[in-house]
Amino acid sequence: MTGGEIKHFLSINSLSIGAINSILDRAESFFPVGSKSAKKIPILRGKTIANLFFEPSTRTKTTFELAATRLSADVLNINIESSATKKGESLSDTLKTLASLRTDIFVVRHNQSGASAFIANLMGDQVSVINAGDGRHEHPTQALLDLFTIKRNKGSFTKLKIAIVGDILHSRVARSEIFALQRVGVKDIRVVGPRTLIPSNIECMGVKPFYNLEQGIEDSDVIITLRLQKERMRSALLPSASEYFETFGLTQAKLSYANPNVIVMHPGPINRGVEIDSAVADGANSRILEQAGNGIAIRMAIMAMLSGERI
Amino acid sequence: MTGGEIKHFLSINSLSIGAINSILDRAESFFPVGSKSAKKIPILRGKTIANLFFEPSTRTKTTFELAATRLSADVLNINIESSATKKGESLSDTLKTLASLRTDIFVVRHNQSGASAFIANLMGDQVSVINAGDGRHEHPTQALLDLFTIKRNKGSFTKLKIAIVGDILHSRVARSEIFALQRVGVKDIRVVGPRTLIPSNIECMGVKPFYNLEQGIEDSDVIITLRLQKERMRSALLPSASEYFETFGLTQAKLSYANPNVIVMHPGPINRGVEIDSAVADGANSRILEQAGNGIAIRMAIMAMLSGERI
Amino acid sequence: MTGGEIKHFLSINSLSIGAINSILDRAESFFPVGSKSAKKIPILRGKTIANLFFEPSTRTKTTFELAATRLSADVLNINIESSATKKGESLSDTLKTLASLRTDIFVVRHNQSGASAFIANLMGDQVSVINAGDGRHEHPTQALLDLFTIKRNKGSFTKLKIAIVGDILHSRVARSEIFALQRVGVKDIRVVGPRTLIPSNIECMGVKPFYNLEQGIEDSDVIITLRLQKERMRSALLPSASEYFETFGLTQAKLSYANPNVIVMHPGPINRGVEIDSAVADGANSRILEQAGNGIAIRMAIMAMLSGERI
Repeated sequence: MTGGEIKHFLSINSLSIGAINSILDRAESFFPVGSKSAKKIPILRGKTIANLFFEPSTRTKTTFELAATRLSADVLNINIESSATKKGESLSDTLKTLASLRTDIFVVRHNQSGASAFIANLMGDQVSVINAGDGRHEHPTQALLDLFTIKRNKGSFTKLKIAIVGDILHSRVARSEIFALQRVGVKDIRVVGPRTLIPSNIECMGVKPFYNLEQGIEDSDVIITLRLQKERMRSALLPSASEYFETFGLTQAKLSYANPNVIVMHPGPINRGVEIDSAVADGANSRILEQAGNGIAIRMAIMAMLSGERI
Repeated sequence: MTGGEIKHFLSINSLSIGAINSILDRAESFFPVGSKSAKKIPILRGKTIANLFFEPSTRTKTTFELAATRLSADVLNINIESSATKKGESLSDTLKTLASLRTDIFVVRHNQSGASAFIANLMGDQVSVINAGDGRHEHPTQALLDLFTIKRNKGSFTKLKIAIVGDILHSRVARSEIFALQRVGVKDIRVVGPRTLIPSNIECMGVKPFYNLEQGIEDSDVIITLRLQKERMRSALLPSASEYFETFGLTQAKLSYANPNVIVMHPGPINRGVEIDSAVADGANSRILEQAGNGIAIRMAIMAMLSGERI
Repeated sequence: MTGGEIKHFLSINSLSIGAINSILDRAESFFPVGSKSAKKIPILRGKTIANLFFEPSTRTKTTFELAATRLSADVLNINIESSATKKGESLSDTLKTLASLRTDIFVVRHNQSGASAFIANLMGDQVSVINAGDGRHEHPTQALLDLFTIKRNKGSFTKLKIAIVGDILHSRVARSEIFALQRVGVKDIRVVGPRTLIPSNIECMGVKPFYNLEQGIEDSDVIITLRLQKERMRSALLPSASEYFETFGLTQAKLSYANPNVIVMHPGPINRGVEIDSAVADGANSRILEQAGNGIAIRMAIMAMLSGERI
């Protein structure tokens, strides 16, 4: 695959296996940049990346900023709160103005599903749009960095048993993970959580639901724990944080049901003592901090690809 | 003209025709930088530009930041709200401290007329000051980017008929535009708006007032629509936004009174359905998005000039 | 001394005279960078400096940002207020995540004494931590930039008489100054202020207390005036700002008690008419603005040292 064929990066669901493999390979080639004394390569020198975060996110925003910086691009952090939209300008006009300033990539985080696609459609060929999380829809860069983490730890995908644990119903991360794992050939994908947080028709997605943690993670090679949103705990969907932890919180005892070489992942930020116990989060099976670092290599790869850099 | 002769860029009224032409020529030479793959030239490498925005402005601040970045300068965004002035330090001390840190250019936006001149006077030869809009006084970089847009579209200035439409009374943009257009030799300048928003003695400035839009824009080659401040609509100066649009909002029907090749400009952000109809803002005569991009070339030219770069 | 031996820069009290002299020498070698046309050297190219300011500080944060930029490092300004800690993530997890992103140096300002040491301990060898002020404990970069200012003005330290005037009791600056001045061999150090603002056992630190300004600064070569925190004025510790100024505010008349060549310093931001009169702050003996500029050279030296650059 040559670069420049893809203009926007909006969802895993619309991505070919070829494109996924290209990004993973490119991320692998960028990975050593983080260990160099000067963590910088000149690939995107003179390009401008605009961070458009309509929802706060330190982790994702920071990794995109660092990824852009390590490619030598310039980063424009637009404070959406105090932007011209406050003066009555339409969002569409604000974005078209930014495009007329010859920004190259918009990184968009928004609480509305489909926001990135809407903006990509508006921009056409002028600016590339990266979906950094849109409502309950998708969080495709998170899914790819998780694929990358799994590949670096396990070598290949097809024979793995992978469990995704937590609030599947509201999670854009879960949706993107499922699409991504299926695309690379994982056959045994389980989703684990209370009945109130797993969609009733989830089997249509080709995954198997479990309402019991021990059964769900049995013999698994990878466990992806999801963050439990505070809002859910306050709603009728869940009894309480401590009761959730009792049943679905990942502890060392429960981890013994999994494959001894299981790796434990989490998109972060983690709620210790809610979805995961500190002994597991900080333990030998955890790859949580490694994931954050891998996020830079993946985002470098995606930005390089959208900028028409050959892969 | 050689660079370095001008220390501060405060107003159009104090600018010679030679300086204006130098800046327009320089902007033309910087214009192609925006289309290059690497939008960056090393002219201001190692210089520091401090953005001092006492009034919010996404568009102007962003274009200054991008202009500085494309000249390879470093940008310091000072958060005035949370700055040392909160700790009881005088503004003058905050600015003198910034100067002692060897910042090269202050870009100042302030709601008080004369604020930039006051700061320039305080700084003397230490730091160059650019007025990015001061109260009702001037907005000189906006006027120059509009001259630049007109020149790129019309070739020359002297025979043009130009109408400025809207709240002339409170607009720093209108004042700077009038000075700039006269300096480059435009003889037929009209200001158009309701009587409550046009100063009674406006003819002293050498322009002709019109209180009817169709008459004011008749046969015009350029229409500069001004943003209607929300505050004005709420005051006794105007009946309502919809009534204003009825009479002075620029629609395709009204545009037919102008020269068929008329170009329509607006400093932004635009209020659709108040001062301009969407069909005009997005239509073939509109140069609104082009203006935003031209703002980068003009601001690059001004910063290069103040830094003593030869023109 | 070769670089790389020191991992963190947390306090003057833990710093050897050799390390102090190395930093002062290195700052002297960086000093001319601020006067060059391109104020930039490539020493820390590709390194990432994260500004972690839990307490607001325009001056210190800006000088660290400029120091990093002049060494060609990239700066990450983390907005602690809106960071992941708001989402229930522990501070420790936020910092470990930042470290996993391969940031090189944390610059930490915190209102808790010992916060920088706590973070340094958490980070181990992964990230270098610079204390940019922690509670009432220390502000070591301020003390070193003051040593640097004294050395540039007076040549050597040992025979100087130095008075520190103001709120000694609550001041991290005073503590760091005393440690630093003693380390470089200053024998005559006086602390001057009202009894309520000088610790009763201060003589244990090897300095002499004075409760009268004229006596305290008599024949002094250097006067370091401290900022009077507004909170103190409102408490029972002080009668009022004007009464404080009457007794301990530095005026030209009181300055006549000092050595005619005395230099007057202040960490800023200054309260004119409270701890210092404008005639003194802006007068021939003042080195206040020079200090701010010297802060960049010192912070460049410290960052270069921690990054393992040879001194």
